[in-house]
Amino acid sequence: MAEIFLKNAWYCAGWDHMVHQGRKSIVARKIAGVRVVLYRKPDGGMVALEDRCPHRQAALSLGRKEGDSLRCMYHGMKFRSDGVCEEIPGQDTIPEKACVRAFPVVEKDNWIWVWMGDPAKADPNLICFSVGPGEKGWNLKTSQMHVETNYRWEIENLADLSHLTWVHEKTVGGDPAYGQIRPKYQITPRGLNTIFWVRSVDPTGAVSHLFPPGTKLDICFDIQHTVPCNWIMRFRAFTAGTATEGESNGKLVVDTWTCQTVTPCDEDSVDYYYSWGCSDSTEFPGMSNLLGGTLDEAFTEDKIMLEAQHVRRKEEPNRKLINIGHDAGPGKMLWVLDKLIREEAGGMPTQQGVTA
Amino acid sequence: MAEIFLKNAWYCAGWDHMVHQGRKSIVARKIAGVRVVLYRKPDGGMVALEDRCPHRQAALSLGRKEGDSLRCMYHGMKFRSDGVCEEIPGQDTIPEKACVRAFPVVEKDNWIWVWMGDPAKADPNLICFSVGPGEKGWNLKTSQMHVETNYRWEIENLADLSHLTWVHEKTVGGDPAYGQIRPKYQITPRGLNTIFWVRSVDPTGAVSHLFPPGTKLDICFDIQHTVPCNWIMRFRAFTAGTATEGESNGKLVVDTWTCQTVTPCDEDSVDYYYSWGCSDSTEFPGMSNLLGGTLDEAFTEDKIMLEAQHVRRKEEPNRKLINIGHDAGPGKMLWVLDKLIREEAGGMPTQQGVTA
Amino acid sequence: MAEIFLKNAWYCAGWDHMVHQGRKSIVARKIAGVRVVLYRKPDGGMVALEDRCPHRQAALSLGRKEGDSLRCMYHGMKFRSDGVCEEIPGQDTIPEKACVRAFPVVEKDNWIWVWMGDPAKADPNLICFSVGPGEKGWNLKTSQMHVETNYRWEIENLADLSHLTWVHEKTVGGDPAYGQIRPKYQITPRGLNTIFWVRSVDPTGAVSHLFPPGTKLDICFDIQHTVPCNWIMRFRAFTAGTATEGESNGKLVVDTWTCQTVTPCDEDSVDYYYSWGCSDSTEFPGMSNLLGGTLDEAFTEDKIMLEAQHVRRKEEPNRKLINIGHDAGPGKMLWVLDKLIREEAGGMPTQQGVTA
Repeated sequence: MAEIFLKNAWYCAGWDHMVHQGRKSIVARKIAGVRVVLYRKPDGGMVALEDRCPHRQAALSLGRKEGDSLRCMYHGMKFRSDGVCEEIPGQDTIPEKACVRAFPVVEKDNWIWVWMGDPAKADPNLICFSVGPGEKGWNLKTSQMHVETNYRWEIENLADLSHLTWVHEKTVGGDPAYGQIRPKYQITPRGLNTIFWVRSVDPTGAVSHLFPPGTKLDICFDIQHTVPCNWIMRFRAFTAGTATEGESNGKLVVDTWTCQTVTPCDEDSVDYYYSWGCSDSTEFPGMSNLLGGTLDEAFTEDKIMLEAQHVRRKEEPNRKLINIGHDAGPGKMLWVLDKLIREEAGGMPTQQGVTA
Repeated sequence: MAEIFLKNAWYCAGWDHMVHQGRKSIVARKIAGVRVVLYRKPDGGMVALEDRCPHRQAALSLGRKEGDSLRCMYHGMKFRSDGVCEEIPGQDTIPEKACVRAFPVVEKDNWIWVWMGDPAKADPNLICFSVGPGEKGWNLKTSQMHVETNYRWEIENLADLSHLTWVHEKTVGGDPAYGQIRPKYQITPRGLNTIFWVRSVDPTGAVSHLFPPGTKLDICFDIQHTVPCNWIMRFRAFTAGTATEGESNGKLVVDTWTCQTVTPCDEDSVDYYYSWGCSDSTEFPGMSNLLGGTLDEAFTEDKIMLEAQHVRRKEEPNRKLINIGHDAGPGKMLWVLDKLIREEAGGMPTQQGVTA
Repeated sequence: MAEIFLKNAWYCAGWDHMVHQGRKSIVARKIAGVRVVLYRKPDGGMVALEDRCPHRQAALSLGRKEGDSLRCMYHGMKFRSDGVCEEIPGQDTIPEKACVRAFPVVEKDNWIWVWMGDPAKADPNLICFSVGPGEKGWNLKTSQMHVETNYRWEIENLADLSHLTWVHEKTVGGDPAYGQIRPKYQITPRGLNTIFWVRSVDPTGAVSHLFPPGTKLDICFDIQHTVPCNWIMRFRAFTAGTATEGESNGKLVVDTWTCQTVTPCDEDSVDYYYSWGCSDSTEFPGMSNLLGGTLDEAFTEDKIMLEAQHVRRKEEPNRKLINIGHDAGPGKMLWVLDKLIREEAGGMPTQQGVTA
């Protein structure tokens, strides 16, 4: 089978508060098919090791933190934070191969990022831009969800917003205008930037009651989508202006960031970490909480759709599918991903480069 | 693997009341390995489409009824009741292949029947005879059950009533006389007719308390079994008479129809729809309700047996089995089914015709 | 795939009280991949048959006891306790092959033992030594647990007690001394005997509050481990003496037997039957109950570890593992088991014999 995961990439392993200094805070994850255990050293530094003892494959996530190290609580082998074994009870010599794979791990914007490929290539500059819940001037609310689907269907989902009209009719979508948009896409070395406006539309389902009857909005979506599946959007709403191109000339009433990342656990499930919230300047009581809660609702709508889709795509993986105009975004984003996977697997970069 | 389902056949998709005019009444089924979505048009007409959008295999059963059409609520593609796509949001042209498979569907005797094969061959005359719960002069009570077994084991179960003695000792069987019966079978082009009497036996378990102590009954079973697995029985009980052949000369005290159909979902499960009830002329307070409720009990007994059997038959599919006399009915019914499956797959009809 | 179960061996099917004289006491087990049904005859004698009717693979465990026989409650075939069919309802002749496999079965020390191989080789002398809960002078408490792991990982677990230190820190282990032990092993024709002392250690977690502060104990483990996975230990604790070799010269304060047997159901799960308790002479109020209850706690600790390990070993069955000193016991015990499996499969006994 062809490789389906990009190795040389930062994958989000959760919000930073999920792995804390508590004695028992040792967290098991599955990332791109690999079991990872996460814990913090006494100085707060994050450690990511393979969650599999080299002795008999016991779960290190059932282990015990001892200083900077992690002890396997099956036979007591103790591993340093770099994965090197420093103690095997009952013997003096330690075989050189008695070590655990250690993963480069970085915290940024309150997300934990793990590099699943060659550690020598783990460049922190490749971590996706995002706005953390701790960012000054912003009130982002965080959440997470497990979805039993393949992460490629999540990429298709996020790279095309026309589905807001249908899947999210009652929450973050609803206006048929979303279904008519033909955004401009800009392919980047590791993703896709998209910006588009919908103008003079009704407020979306979940927030429509907050606006006076008849309010029309100009809405701007400005999205940075990067591999493996990070999706960062500045979402702004203005009272409807008269401009038909470029910035709205209405009044900015909602200025928000939503930061989302989908981490494939394996081929059949993902962990989804996300946030949404307002700028201080457009906040009003309850607004950021509403946005955060709305995402939980909306992503439950996606979960139902994507899990039913995944069942069907697994049943008939070779069924010939038809394409539509809205596949442009998903197609480009998957093209970038597959190109990087191919290159990593030893194939040559394609001639088109990254701006096809 | 050899085909295990007959395609050119009507399969029951449920009782008519299961798919109604309500805005959200869109029903998902799996029939003979194929996902089917059912809904009613505003005029009440039933529609059956494949439950799989041709775009990205989303579940159409998560869709929305719009007039006679069904809209996929992932990207908004809208399909007519004949499966032809009539709208793709965001574009004017519609690829010719953007259509969903539509299945011939007919309602008869309060059952919904879907034709899973070549639509050109969908002859409503092939729908099995039955007596619906709405039939005048009869009081049939309906029910249904999901069973995790292969439908061939259901055919074996229904084509031999000797199991009443054992599996249904406390409900619809119990008398050892059932275990001794050697019925006459008449093979038909698409099934098996069976008629037999047991004479001067005790009332069966579930109804025995309704008769005075010592009551003996003559019971007639008259069964039409057709492919894929429809099973229609007129069941009559008389006070025991003196006749040893043909009609009983006792008094008819229970005159009933039970109509049953087993729809294979896939190789490992079936949906079972069934009814039982008395004629007006032999009804007395509570009798038809008792019969309906007794079937629920009895088929739970079958479910336990057939699910345990299915586990074992899957574990050892090639184990050499031994045959007994009571396999005559099952053997003939499976012979008819397999002959039709072979012919459909392109094989020649066998020389013996249908009266082997 | 290579055979993973030894056939010519006695496997424990449970405590004798689990299969009783009650009309409905018919017990289904899966032993070394084979479905077995157990019941008692009116004289109390135990019967073990394959839980699979030769007719259509119905579950005989859904059957009915009739005298010494078991009737399949699907079509009424009745089998003697030796598996021979004695009745097929509706016919006079009984095909010779209409019989069920019968297994030699013996009760000993309140355990039920089933021989899964050639009946001619079923030598009761091969049943492992144990001390039953009914043994005079002892107060053994019994229990059982189902664990979703491969029985080889249970063998590894039991053949090395260094894991007491880590897995059972709070229950039956805890002292780092256990992690330093290098026991002497004596390979036997069907297993491994191990005896070792830990001296002047703290009382283990679960019983430490029963001893005055500062108490030190000399503890002796004397273990007979036999195939497939029986594990019988005399466990004694003395107040710490001055002897550094051989018997402690402290006072015997705890004298116990724990008898444990792990029966593989299939490759992915085991049934674990075990007991622990004191001699009358070292019993004090509640002590044997405490020991029995402590095993339930400790084996729940093992279950968590072994199930997580099994998931990982199935994910990467071919991963190269590293070995440590404490693998000596597990290695020898698996060597004995694999040697017997190979010999049974027709291979020659190895030259080393049984004392490698």
